[in-house]
Amino acid sequence: MDLHADALVIDGLIIAKWARPVFEDMRRGGLSAANCTVSVWEGFQDTMNNIAEMKRLIREHDELLTLALSVADIRRAKAEGRTGIILGFQNAHAFEDRLEYVETFADMGVRVAQLCYNTQNLIGTGCYERDGGLSGFGREVIAEMNRVGIMVDLSHVGGLTSREAILASTKPVCYSHCLPSGLKPHPRNKSDEELRFIADHGGFIGVTMFPPFLRRGTAATVDDYVEAMDYVIALVGEDCVGYGTDFTQGYDQRFFDWITHDKGRYRRLTDFGPILNPEGIRTIGETPNLTAAMQRAGWPERKIRKVLGENWLRVFGEVWGA
Amino acid sequence: MDLHADALVIDGLIIAKWARPVFEDMRRGGLSAANCTVSVWEGFQDTMNNIAEMKRLIREHDELLTLALSVADIRRAKAEGRTGIILGFQNAHAFEDRLEYVETFADMGVRVAQLCYNTQNLIGTGCYERDGGLSGFGREVIAEMNRVGIMVDLSHVGGLTSREAILASTKPVCYSHCLPSGLKPHPRNKSDEELRFIADHGGFIGVTMFPPFLRRGTAATVDDYVEAMDYVIALVGEDCVGYGTDFTQGYDQRFFDWITHDKGRYRRLTDFGPILNPEGIRTIGETPNLTAAMQRAGWPERKIRKVLGENWLRVFGEVWGA
Repeated sequence: MDLHADALVIDGLIIAKWARPVFEDMRRGGLSAANCTVSVWEGFQDTMNNIAEMKRLIREHDELLTLALSVADIRRAKAEGRTGIILGFQNAHAFEDRLEYVETFADMGVRVAQLCYNTQNLIGTGCYERDGGLSGFGREVIAEMNRVGIMVDLSHVGGLTSREAILASTKPVCYSHCLPSGLKPHPRNKSDEELRFIADHGGFIGVTMFPPFLRRGTAATVDDYVEAMDYVIALVGEDCVGYGTDFTQGYDQRFFDWITHDKGRYRRLTDFGPILNPEGIRTIGETPNLTAAMQRAGWPERKIRKVLGENWLRVFGEVWGA
Repeated sequence: MDLHADALVIDGLIIAKWARPVFEDMRRGGLSAANCTVSVWEGFQDTMNNIAEMKRLIREHDELLTLALSVADIRRAKAEGRTGIILGFQNAHAFEDRLEYVETFADMGVRVAQLCYNTQNLIGTGCYERDGGLSGFGREVIAEMNRVGIMVDLSHVGGLTSREAILASTKPVCYSHCLPSGLKPHPRNKSDEELRFIADHGGFIGVTMFPPFLRRGTAATVDDYVEAMDYVIALVGEDCVGYGTDFTQGYDQRFFDWITHDKGRYRRLTDFGPILNPEGIRTIGETPNLTAAMQRAGWPERKIRKVLGENWLRVFGEVWGA
């Protein structure tokens, strides 16, 4: 049996350039679903435009894709050999100052939203500047996200805001794409204590492989990625861990300049240096190599299936209610 | 000589209902100029609409009013027996996530902008919730306000954000309308230390008379207002103090509900209880009674003239450059 082909495969975060080459690669990679970023620095209307464009793309390439609004949609995508597109935000900035927009975006199909991207917004503060914690408005936003079924993502959120969001949410929250600072200290990586804290409070951890945050950087291979997963699993167990690659496939330097400057325009927050994904999983299409690396690492099939997708599916069901 | 009629009179903050009755009362009160609020919770476009409306009102009532863009405009208004309308924000929310909008609003005539109103925004945090301090974007906003000549106002800003803004600004900043917590503890009032800190760093203090923040609340008279001014002057001297009433004339309960809820809509931040301005200065038209109270308190003419308007005029000149 081809385990990868048989397994449910959910990538907890992709921010690739949405166009046919990436969608074809998603099929090559055997993805059942992926949390696909449709907002980073954009406000309300530009985010609406991004969503409309993504829906057009899903329609145009519907032999490859389907919109995933529920766990049932992801199971259906898997059965039909398509990839379920989960609409996700990496910044709740698009909610602007309107709690009502949380439901508006849920109505549009958004199912995951990171509270902050790198810096301060109305809700809290990102991980690249001093973090004053969750604002009162932020608490109201989380309650609304819980109500309408949008999962709270904290990957790029600061430590204090994350801690308070984990405590404030009545539904599981996630770090959709993070790495342990135990393997490499970095503002984007999470300490053992932080990883245990989210897990102890019913939250979820998607392990990323973005090279600047990996122990061996651009020298890393897919086996280093599995090592990072095992580091996290050793801390929190195998039931609340998934994967979330942070693939940026198809983008050029302009994109990286945009995401690494505050609001996409102002001061530089970080400089990633050269981006080269781990050998063996440089592209989405190589995702089967991840399963192979898990097998090389001696993972039992049960653990592989969980981390490849079943864990994400379960937690999405808990948050989405369907 | 009628000192009030002769003096330059500048009210550092009015947020009245902009319509002819208020403009007539400004003339009755002998106001040479007033910092008039045109944005609180509004975003970019609604604030633009408010400014357009205010400019229409200035045009329609130009025997009473003139737009004040400079110190020269205020002197001219005084000479012509009109009131100079200074366009001011009580929240920098209208700058949204665009540094460019700082100059855009300066081009529109805005000359004073408070960084935050009561809660957290992209720049810092207001005085009604935990304050994590000035954000990196906030530092860029202040630099831009310094460059284009918009005065930084900190009246409703939290303690840490205020302190950091005072240190970050290269031009004088102000509490345009505040009272000392030495006379009455209140989240909106400033401690002796805070008042000394802004003054020691070249900043300015406009003393307000909003009853919920006054020692004697709604039982206060115009003499209590002068007492509060004297308290501040005893701390910081008479050269960096002016007055800023916070008149809300013409508004009903709906307005107070709007300003006391986060974003104008969500959780209640404070409840002012009954609003009744100090006896003797219940309306803008009674402003001459303030001068009379200063005289009753034994203030020398020089001190009265400074606090009534000459100090504001000087500091506006320092910030606006004209």
